[in-house]
Amino acid sequence: MSLTGTTDMLALNKTHDASAKSWVASANTNDSDFPIQNLPFCVFKHGGETRGGVAIGDQVFDLRAAVQANVFSGDALIAAEAGSQTTLNALMALPPSINSALRAALFDHLKADGSAQAQAAELGGKTLIPTKDVELGLPCKIEGYTDFLTSIHHTERHGKLKGLKDPLPPAFHSLPVAYHGRTSSILPSGTQVVRPNGQWKDADGSVKFGAVSALDFELELGALIGQGNTQGDPVLLSQAYQHLFGFCLLNDWSAKSIQWWEQVLGPFLGKNFHTSLSPWVVTTEALLPFRTAASPRTESAPPLLAHLHSREDREYGALDIELQARILTPRMRDEKAAPSRLTLTNAKTLYWTFGQMLAHHTSNGCNMQPGDLIGSGTISGVEPESMACMTEMTQAGTHAITLDNGEQRNWLGDGDEVIFTGRAQRQGYASIGFGECRGVIIPARPYGANA
Amino acid sequence: MSLTGTTDMLALNKTHDASAKSWVASANTNDSDFPIQNLPFCVFKHGGETRGGVAIGDQVFDLRAAVQANVFSGDALIAAEAGSQTTLNALMALPPSINSALRAALFDHLKADGSAQAQAAELGGKTLIPTKDVELGLPCKIEGYTDFLTSIHHTERHGKLKGLKDPLPPAFHSLPVAYHGRTSSILPSGTQVVRPNGQWKDADGSVKFGAVSALDFELELGALIGQGNTQGDPVLLSQAYQHLFGFCLLNDWSAKSIQWWEQVLGPFLGKNFHTSLSPWVVTTEALLPFRTAASPRTESAPPLLAHLHSREDREYGALDIELQARILTPRMRDEKAAPSRLTLTNAKTLYWTFGQMLAHHTSNGCNMQPGDLIGSGTISGVEPESMACMTEMTQAGTHAITLDNGEQRNWLGDGDEVIFTGRAQRQGYASIGFGECRGVIIPARPYGANA
Repeated sequence: MSLTGTTDMLALNKTHDASAKSWVASANTNDSDFPIQNLPFCVFKHGGETRGGVAIGDQVFDLRAAVQANVFSGDALIAAEAGSQTTLNALMALPPSINSALRAALFDHLKADGSAQAQAAELGGKTLIPTKDVELGLPCKIEGYTDFLTSIHHTERHGKLKGLKDPLPPAFHSLPVAYHGRTSSILPSGTQVVRPNGQWKDADGSVKFGAVSALDFELELGALIGQGNTQGDPVLLSQAYQHLFGFCLLNDWSAKSIQWWEQVLGPFLGKNFHTSLSPWVVTTEALLPFRTAASPRTESAPPLLAHLHSREDREYGALDIELQARILTPRMRDEKAAPSRLTLTNAKTLYWTFGQMLAHHTSNGCNMQPGDLIGSGTISGVEPESMACMTEMTQAGTHAITLDNGEQRNWLGDGDEVIFTGRAQRQGYASIGFGECRGVIIPARPYGANA
Repeated sequence: MSLTGTTDMLALNKTHDASAKSWVASANTNDSDFPIQNLPFCVFKHGGETRGGVAIGDQVFDLRAAVQANVFSGDALIAAEAGSQTTLNALMALPPSINSALRAALFDHLKADGSAQAQAAELGGKTLIPTKDVELGLPCKIEGYTDFLTSIHHTERHGKLKGLKDPLPPAFHSLPVAYHGRTSSILPSGTQVVRPNGQWKDADGSVKFGAVSALDFELELGALIGQGNTQGDPVLLSQAYQHLFGFCLLNDWSAKSIQWWEQVLGPFLGKNFHTSLSPWVVTTEALLPFRTAASPRTESAPPLLAHLHSREDREYGALDIELQARILTPRMRDEKAAPSRLTLTNAKTLYWTFGQMLAHHTSNGCNMQPGDLIGSGTISGVEPESMACMTEMTQAGTHAITLDNGEQRNWLGDGDEVIFTGRAQRQGYASIGFGECRGVIIPARPYGANA
């Protein structure tokens, strides 16, 4: 498979070689999310200072230390310097070819039996920091956040819960539905989620305000924009993947009772109390082997408009990434039990590709900026086990689910932790992972307690 | 009237004295938007450098030059230094009392017959720049933008156009409806508006893509946040005005045919191609004399929930600001005719106050940041002349309006310029204005012309 040419500047290359191993031994175990073929970027804090890094096994490779040790030259050095800052925005803003040079140089530097191994291993003490010893933050300053609704299964189940005759909105087949989210409340994985207060309509018809019980997670994939576009100039579908720097796991925490009541012009307070993002940005180039055919369109759907259609997008526009959500309740924590799985799904089931999302988003001239976040929407598949939020699983809280240890849940409880993981696998390629996106619910604060 | 005490840190003071004049003569004419009682902030570029300033008559008072000339001391100096930067965010982040000290010092410095007049006038050559010679930009870096829907008349007319039995959404009386907007496409007044391309459903039921004809303006007031709040800690209604730094005119340009088709989770591409903001931030303190009683609630409405109600908000929560929208067509421009008025309305008619908007927005713990923008939504009153968008005036494009020169419009045409102005007046107080928010429509670019 090659995606070179008009549609994509990147092609499969040595960095995708499944046989390559790293001299960082922990990268070579079968269960590591971060083998040498992955090399996801992060922003970490260590020794009081924040800078960019790259995951390799259970270590963070310190880009700033590597620059200082003269590990890189040429384009790779340009990218490594951009990646050494306190956010990855400058790195994301570079042309894909420059960032690809850094990936190639990282691969050469970290590869076992490479020409640089002896020197690299000697530097290891300066450039590698155990991941357990660093604090992982948001990978970039996110100035724009757009959340899509691109799972046909999620959308249909929601429509049916609402009792709609046609559970899909009329425009669903013609465009990827989206709304703007709030950036100020996006927080890195691991930050506690304060149960929100809010307003809802009660079963008796009265309007109430207080701590919300209908608290849900939504399992999504987030794309971070690389190079932006000038206002007025759309990103064409054929160029879209060149503008997608990489991908993270995203938990679009939702207070459903707020959302159901407030929603006239879209979700607002039901969402903007907290959004969680995983710290590792798995690059578009690392994911190249896992590009796959877009999900088939519904037979009765109208043909795609020209700007949302290309042969390449139909053939390679989707991402084959298996995603899981698990829950760790306080009782499981006390009993040292394993988390109970809630969801097993795959990003390739989305009805719209990330390329289509970006082409649509910019089709009116809207300008994207490096580090802007695009959420896929809840990635539910057709199977019951692939339902990717509790609203679907519990039919809006009316049918409790039973966890592995017998506990039941209609919604998330205080102390519950939700853990997302993601993994891309394909015969002939090294499997790569996304790390974790975690968040534990803590009790609501009494309204006005801060006054 | 005093708003001191628990509800508001600011009270009427010498800077509101209607008899005060400035030694800058152009500030003393009756029609000046910027008498010494106004003192709105801006960010301007002159001599290749960008910094903060203050309008006085037809001049911009250069805060950086004034700091360098030792005009200020104490708290006023702290604020003036913060206001000298390339954005006003640092100024906005200061406590209101610090910014109030700067206002008092500016008033003393610019006042005619004040003790500082001779020295101040001598410095005038260094600190004053004719407004016509500067480039006015956005007043701050806007990291969050929320647009509300708080005019009951606008909302009802829209509901009726849609043929809804109950034209108001069920939650309208219980909360100020809102959605997140896009910040990247907010541009300063005067920037040309490229007619967007987009997708819509045609009369024959087919889905089309191309240049949008149903292009509209929406006349709004924008509030810019001063001090922010910590995530999880709401801004209480009693504190809300302390978190509102000031107000601008806002044109929420709308491509209605896109919006009608796409809107499932709120407005998206129908709005995010361009939003215009006026350059002058009229401060909350300058507007204190124009605080007025909140618009009466509909008799059948349920009582306000406690966190959205206070006696002070009902008595002083609204802003008496008269707003106008005018249009200047290419023919008017050719014939040197005056613009034709489209709208005459008043912000006091809004059903929800800015205090309630902010209290609601943060009631779930959502964090606001200095410089964040809150739009009021289209400010339509009950009278036909107060309809504040063409969708209302033309009944969604079906009934053309006739302009002063006999031209007709169903929607905005290429070359049309829309001009907003705003003015606060009250017996016994100097009238203050907002300057202008302008934007001229230029033709759509062929899709993909940039490829």
